[in-house]
Amino acid sequence: MAKQQWKPGNMVYPLPAVMVTCADKSGRYNVMTAAWTGTICSDPPMVYVSVRKNRFSHHMLMETKEYVINLTTEALAQATDFVGVRSGRDMDKFEEMHLTPVMGTLKYAPMIKESPVCIECVVTQVLELGSHDMFIAEVRHVFADEKYMDAAGRFDLAKAKPLAYVHGQYYGIGRHIGRFGFSVQKKKIPSKKKHTGRKK
Amino acid sequence: MAKQQWKPGNMVYPLPAVMVTCADKSGRYNVMTAAWTGTICSDPPMVYVSVRKNRFSHHMLMETKEYVINLTTEALAQATDFVGVRSGRDMDKFEEMHLTPVMGTLKYAPMIKESPVCIECVVTQVLELGSHDMFIAEVRHVFADEKYMDAAGRFDLAKAKPLAYVHGQYYGIGRHIGRFGFSVQKKKIPSKKKHTGRKK
Repeated sequence: MAKQQWKPGNMVYPLPAVMVTCADKSGRYNVMTAAWTGTICSDPPMVYVSVRKNRFSHHMLMETKEYVINLTTEALAQATDFVGVRSGRDMDKFEEMHLTPVMGTLKYAPMIKESPVCIECVVTQVLELGSHDMFIAEVRHVFADEKYMDAAGRFDLAKAKPLAYVHGQYYGIGRHIGRFGFSVQKKKIPSKKKHTGRKK
Repeated sequence: MAKQQWKPGNMVYPLPAVMVTCADKSGRYNVMTAAWTGTICSDPPMVYVSVRKNRFSHHMLMETKEYVINLTTEALAQATDFVGVRSGRDMDKFEEMHLTPVMGTLKYAPMIKESPVCIECVVTQVLELGSHDMFIAEVRHVFADEKYMDAAGRFDLAKAKPLAYVHGQYYGIGRHIGRFGFSVQKKKIPSKKKHTGRKK
């Protein structure tokens, strides 16, 4: 086996590069990038975001137990990266990156208007794991931009050109390979005789 | 805001479409697909996989508390999808999909030889969340295929053409957008006068 054995590390990829928004009780809000995020349960729909204790967002998450996962796009790549390396202690990152905070149904945490999908979450549990605290949450509402609905009324996230994070690098989404279940779909076997609908 | 408000749902994407391998104590092993997976802590490196109780792998995970996250590629798309829709109760999915089980350092759970990256994990906690149980684990070792190392000896996962899962659809990885931190990198400002290294 031509594989190298490495020490333990973070190698699960591709991941979503999302912008997480939250606020404190006074109404001050912040936005940060996270790739340590994902779905942990289908029903009820539950997600998580893992955040270092020294992040400016951390005390807001602890205080109001709310956050919004804002999906990102190739067009938002610059903003997504920037809010991941700069701190809200030093600036209003919304203003800096021309992001628009809008309130959905949560009490404190705003959504990002420019995001194609905003997922409102309420924290149910915090796990202290080491470098990161994991904020486990239930999804309360999902807001999705109408411009990515297809002709059949289905939401087509690929149209938004979502951003992926792969081992320190940002990528767009590439070629479509198939839909879930494609490997077992029965191929239509062409019948040798065509039914003409007429009696012989 | 031209956004539709939806009921709670699973909308965090793109996600990795991984193959999870595990075994029972008798040595019978299985492989299943998971997109409800990701990194939850950097140090120690910790990951999770969420699995429905009725999945054939579930009792193996409970019994041996081990699993391997095997990353997938465009070339493995057919196998990845197939092991997600068929059950190990009915067949040996390794054999069916021409996947090769190889042992790494874990006691029970095999890795998939054909996978570019295999992440060996030991379960530390199981959270019962609803439809899914979340298997929180520490990463013990990472095995990475040497053929994806670049000239500088860095592992380049993109070369393996990793598979992404986006809202019911499989995609490849697309164009490279930048590396983490690209938004704040200083551009080299060309100096007007070239230093020639000679005295005037």
